Amino acid sequence: MIKLSLEDVRQLATETLIGAGASSQNASAVADSTVLAERDGIRSHGLLYVPIYAEHVKCGKVDGTAVPVVEKVKSGSIRVDAKTGFAHPAIDAGFDAFIAATKENGVAALTTRNSYNCGVLGHHAERIAEQGLVGLCFTHAPASIAPTGGKTPVIGTNPFALAVPDTDNGAALVIDQSASTIAKSEILLRASKDETIEDNWALDSEGNPTTDAKAALKGSMLPSGGQKGFGVGLLVEIMASCLAGALLSRDAAPFSGTVGGPPKTGQCFLAFDTSAFSGELFVERISALTQAIEEQAGARLPGSRRKNNRQAIEKDGVIVDPTLLERIKKSG
Amino acid sequence: MIKLSLEDVRQLATETLIGAGASSQNASAVADSTVLAERDGIRSHGLLYVPIYAEHVKCGKVDGTAVPVVEKVKSGSIRVDAKTGFAHPAIDAGFDAFIAATKENGVAALTTRNSYNCGVLGHHAERIAEQGLVGLCFTHAPASIAPTGGKTPVIGTNPFALAVPDTDNGAALVIDQSASTIAKSEILLRASKDETIEDNWALDSEGNPTTDAKAALKGSMLPSGGQKGFGVGLLVEIMASCLAGALLSRDAAPFSGTVGGPPKTGQCFLAFDTSAFSGELFVERISALTQAIEEQAGARLPGSRRKNNRQAIEKDGVIVDPTLLERIKKSG
Repeated sequence: MIKLSLEDVRQLATETLIGAGASSQNASAVADSTVLAERDGIRSHGLLYVPIYAEHVKCGKVDGTAVPVVEKVKSGSIRVDAKTGFAHPAIDAGFDAFIAATKENGVAALTTRNSYNCGVLGHHAERIAEQGLVGLCFTHAPASIAPTGGKTPVIGTNPFALAVPDTDNGAALVIDQSASTIAKSEILLRASKDETIEDNWALDSEGNPTTDAKAALKGSMLPSGGQKGFGVGLLVEIMASCLAGALLSRDAAPFSGTVGGPPKTGQCFLAFDTSAFSGELFVERISALTQAIEEQAGARLPGSRRKNNRQAIEKDGVIVDPTLLERIKKSG
Repeated sequence: MIKLSLEDVRQLATETLIGAGASSQNASAVADSTVLAERDGIRSHGLLYVPIYAEHVKCGKVDGTAVPVVEKVKSGSIRVDAKTGFAHPAIDAGFDAFIAATKENGVAALTTRNSYNCGVLGHHAERIAEQGLVGLCFTHAPASIAPTGGKTPVIGTNPFALAVPDTDNGAALVIDQSASTIAKSEILLRASKDETIEDNWALDSEGNPTTDAKAALKGSMLPSGGQKGFGVGLLVEIMASCLAGALLSRDAAPFSGTVGGPPKTGQCFLAFDTSAFSGELFVERISALTQAIEEQAGARLPGSRRKNNRQAIEKDGVIVDPTLLERIKKSG
């Protein structure tokens, strides 16, 4: 195994993406997100993704040289056309105007369309919290979840994320959760190993529960919490796809593989300036609320696992499999 | 059984609340919500609630003559102090400014504090949709759900609601769902009949699953979807309690019974002007999305049951149990 510093991770990701054909600015925006994922121990969205990003630049699923276009249509609405490039530079392009609009109006929204997988959604929410604002983020994904009672996928694993500022330029808590019972990557992994899946993870193509991972991939994933879980994913769909003017999840090309062209999915981020609502009371309430959760043996605050990983990895660096490193180097 | 028109329901609710001591404006705002609940067949929030409202005015849990105070702190933030009165007149007081701010800025928020149970949350979202805007609403309730792994309730059944405008001054779809597996009223009903509950509804006071309804009432209710369900309820808590500056769910006096004084809970409503984001594309996307759900045998669009009830009840009126009618008349 090889140990890399977070700075090594950044450099490796940047160079690989530039090697694949991305502009330096776009590569840098995506590399930042790779660093954050590795820093928090979210390996699925870290270096593992770099060869996929590189492949997607090469095959045209992502335009690595796209220049996003930002419009401020009304004083609280910033919309960005990602021009089938990476999501991260599109979000970056609108971010300062979004934060300024929030501080001016009390609340503002940033939407992106013709976009792509935005990586760890919670990091975008946390970036808003680092500006002293509450961040509520929605992003959608190619369809994998059927409506309850149906069998044809209509929405993706559609996560939402909420981050709340602390008094120290960080986040007091970060909720980041998808609408599905389990990550699709886990079902893909089980299928590749010919292993079974739990019976509440997915349905087969006929809409029946299945423990066969391959049958699940031809069917649909189950939402966490049944009809209500579907409702949460549908909320995300309406914000990140419909309001943003992106393609619907069911019309989006897959995030994985090289076929289908750009997914043209979207994001919708909201920010709230607490001074325009409850002000100092907000800080008091959040402090009492997080304490009421943390003081219970067995319970944990959402986001606490990532925070713990962060402390260790910032100190110790990232352990990388040499075969992954080889794959990354070849992909650029 | 007695049949009432929706106009009869309005008059009965208004007169009862005025009889209990509410101002005519406050009584009228609450009576409107009673009519909507009965119209949609949501009996738990219709006439059944009128004697409770009346009792709460009499015992001081609600100040029936409260005059809400509205402030516009920034151009997109309307906050209302309900002054421990009903939620409905507080929402009414800020509503026009909230809608105007949304149309001006693209997005706006309305928060209420020192408030009370706001009835059917979906009706507030739908009212926003009737203005041609997307409405996303949060309200919280006295604590009944413990964090996953814990046993002390921290958040309430905390629903969220989303309504999307159609092209006909109505809503194309309404999501309205609480964070719990089941409504608390169902557990109360089972306890009163000495019946058992399902094993995924609640935990006893030691944090163990229970089928004993009375033990459940001393313990905590389970969120729909485990840890992720708790996450959804926590999002609602942060928006409707913390951002609004209301009491936390765990500090709020119960919505039921006469003890504890005003619950001082809160609401947070967001509205989005689609013309500031995806415009015409929004209508296309929603139409394709709702069709993709409705065309699947066995699946249904959120809110469709209420819509069907509405058609029948607007035509046929409301069937009321004479003993309930008697109870209402005595309560005023």
